[in-house]
Amino acid sequence: MTSPKPRIVIIGGGFGGLAAAQKLAGANVAVTLIDRRNHHLFQPLLYQVATAALSPSEVAWPIRHILRKQDNVQVLMATVVGVDINQRAVILEDGSHVPYDTLVVATGAQHAYFDKDEWEQFAPGLKTLEDATSIRRRLLLAFEAAERETNAEARRALLTFAIIGAGPTGVEMAGAVVELGRASLKDQFRNITPADLRVVLIEGADRVLLNFSPDLSAYTLKSLRDLGVEVELGQMVKAIDADGVSFGDKRLLTKTIIWAAGVAASPAAKWLDAEADKAGRVKVNADLTLPGHPEIIVVGDTASISTPEGKPVPGVAPAAKQAGAHAAQLILARLRGDASPLPFRYAHAGDLATIGKRSAVIDFGTTKLKGWIAWWVWGIAHIYFLVDFKNRIFVAMSWLWIYLTGQRSSRLITHGMATEKAPLEEVDEAG
Amino acid sequence: MTSPKPRIVIIGGGFGGLAAAQKLAGANVAVTLIDRRNHHLFQPLLYQVATAALSPSEVAWPIRHILRKQDNVQVLMATVVGVDINQRAVILEDGSHVPYDTLVVATGAQHAYFDKDEWEQFAPGLKTLEDATSIRRRLLLAFEAAERETNAEARRALLTFAIIGAGPTGVEMAGAVVELGRASLKDQFRNITPADLRVVLIEGADRVLLNFSPDLSAYTLKSLRDLGVEVELGQMVKAIDADGVSFGDKRLLTKTIIWAAGVAASPAAKWLDAEADKAGRVKVNADLTLPGHPEIIVVGDTASISTPEGKPVPGVAPAAKQAGAHAAQLILARLRGDASPLPFRYAHAGDLATIGKRSAVIDFGTTKLKGWIAWWVWGIAHIYFLVDFKNRIFVAMSWLWIYLTGQRSSRLITHGMATEKAPLEEVDEAG
Repeated sequence: MTSPKPRIVIIGGGFGGLAAAQKLAGANVAVTLIDRRNHHLFQPLLYQVATAALSPSEVAWPIRHILRKQDNVQVLMATVVGVDINQRAVILEDGSHVPYDTLVVATGAQHAYFDKDEWEQFAPGLKTLEDATSIRRRLLLAFEAAERETNAEARRALLTFAIIGAGPTGVEMAGAVVELGRASLKDQFRNITPADLRVVLIEGADRVLLNFSPDLSAYTLKSLRDLGVEVELGQMVKAIDADGVSFGDKRLLTKTIIWAAGVAASPAAKWLDAEADKAGRVKVNADLTLPGHPEIIVVGDTASISTPEGKPVPGVAPAAKQAGAHAAQLILARLRGDASPLPFRYAHAGDLATIGKRSAVIDFGTTKLKGWIAWWVWGIAHIYFLVDFKNRIFVAMSWLWIYLTGQRSSRLITHGMATEKAPLEEVDEAG
Repeated sequence: MTSPKPRIVIIGGGFGGLAAAQKLAGANVAVTLIDRRNHHLFQPLLYQVATAALSPSEVAWPIRHILRKQDNVQVLMATVVGVDINQRAVILEDGSHVPYDTLVVATGAQHAYFDKDEWEQFAPGLKTLEDATSIRRRLLLAFEAAERETNAEARRALLTFAIIGAGPTGVEMAGAVVELGRASLKDQFRNITPADLRVVLIEGADRVLLNFSPDLSAYTLKSLRDLGVEVELGQMVKAIDADGVSFGDKRLLTKTIIWAAGVAASPAAKWLDAEADKAGRVKVNADLTLPGHPEIIVVGDTASISTPEGKPVPGVAPAAKQAGAHAAQLILARLRGDASPLPFRYAHAGDLATIGKRSAVIDFGTTKLKGWIAWWVWGIAHIYFLVDFKNRIFVAMSWLWIYLTGQRSSRLITHGMATEKAPLEEVDEAG
């Protein structure tokens, strides 16, 4: 009789969890990947779903499809509510336990509102497909409501869009909202015009893209302003409500606010009863294992990791992928009986952000790119990194279409019809 | 001073309303098209969204985009709640009135459950994009739940799919569910296989596709059975609940039931205080005007229309388009001062239905096609009739992809995560 295969349980099918599962291909282990959603999401392009350039199925793919050829993996669509560290089992919402010999925690991050959770209803963030279609609906419904609104001030508020946070997501959203608005308002409406559109990007720091070099920040600021985005720097948001946002000593009347300012780790630290940093990320050893629990490996945005130089590892897709691959390497080393230390080494490839349709900035550290060359590199890199061959073709074609015609293909308002009382109100998205 | 332009108000942006608006291009009128959704939907391909072959944006397009170049049209996204016939105004949900000189009512049809409205929660129909993504979610969640289910009987119920009604929609859904199931279960799940899949098509009449010639019905029946669909003919549904469906003296345990059996007209007859047939369709004059109200024209599924031979005009896209175009012709004739009678003449082009991936039946009356030739004609015809050039390319490419690889691109479960209590329960879709 052969001994049973080591049971590897991975929580989360994002970049980290998926990379861990894929690097275990062919290994003599029994992998169970658990996610409460059925799809892996290519988050770097999610803002394009929110602004109607891509459709949801172009940036998401069923996890079990991605892993279908990997015989040693089983995918479970289930919600995790805890971990029994002593019994070594993941606890699912239905009360069942999934036992593990090694646990990889890759549960990612969610929005954080700096203890102002009541802001979320007025300023949704962008993490899931539902977030993206919800923001898309808010943007498109604002145009519809403005077309019907006869009061000038109310119409102005409907055509004002605030984006909070000028990191890559905020910068990309600001550019994309300007372009969605201009393309939509140009010829499709009769009472409103592109000149009525106002996009305001609000940032607490004194420059946009704080992780990039100052000259790229300056270039991005100028590009955004050339595009028509009003950029408010050094402004802390004080209040958000149904009628607008207050920052510094200013008050901006707007019906559509998008949150791109902060993320916090998933509740994994609580499950593991582990020490966390102030963003909720689990403090881990140099090899990403939980202190005192070598059988638990924490990766991606769930872990608090620093580079050897003491800089925090950023919450970006390449970092999560590298950490997931590292978890698999650690597991494979142990299977070989290799107990030598295996610290995680993060290799920073660079920072990228697009600014509207034909410009981008890329900071490779020593090399810096900006403008249309950077935009092409950004586009090719993103198509290359898409999970699936079909998605690569379709995203490339969608982009080509928008590039040539300016027409965004996915301007659908779903899960929300015109209603009297609440044209901009939400249905329960998380359902 | 010129006299004001005649105000034409069209309620509904489906095939009928859109055709009416488009045929008025260039006319010296002020058209207002009102729809509570922002998109025109290509309903003939909606079942492909429900079965994950196409994504929503491939079969829907914003109405104001379609009509953007037509200067005499304004599009309003708003919900109509009534018509003030005496004051000649459409009443919106917010209480405002939209005055008209001529009103075109093109509000379409909705599901009808033969006075058993409580069946709807267990057996959703397929009329809107939300219906389609909701059915897609139910289908995909049933596979997910079956993969986790350890009780054999419960698993069998999860992998049994019932479709009620064997008209074109029911036949097309049955074939598509078989193919979605086979492709998904083949290699992506570990505990369930394609052999576990059961698709049951239940029809009250004694043959499928009652509107087609008997030999095409027989061919379709054989094709469906070859495909593995269990077809139950002459069976009236007696009960539908959360655990299954009862028909004749049989009881089928299933967690997923799709309603393709009956439609009823929208509430337009009530708005107009007009006489209606038993399906709720407004009885109209030969020229589609409302008796006693020549300024009100009723088209598409909203109207009860017969051919000169006394056969009812079917509720299909070409009939709605022809009626919409007729409404425009009537309006244009009146503008010219031409008061001669203009009866609506319906030209029946034919009936089409696909049976799975590579077979179809087409009944042109004298000419009949079946098998793969019919499937190609069906495919080319549907791509030709898609509203938009980009959609034509993308739908053709999606089909080509499925044809070559068998992979369906849109197997996303959205607005529903794995939860303990109700893996198959719905969020409020209509929100």
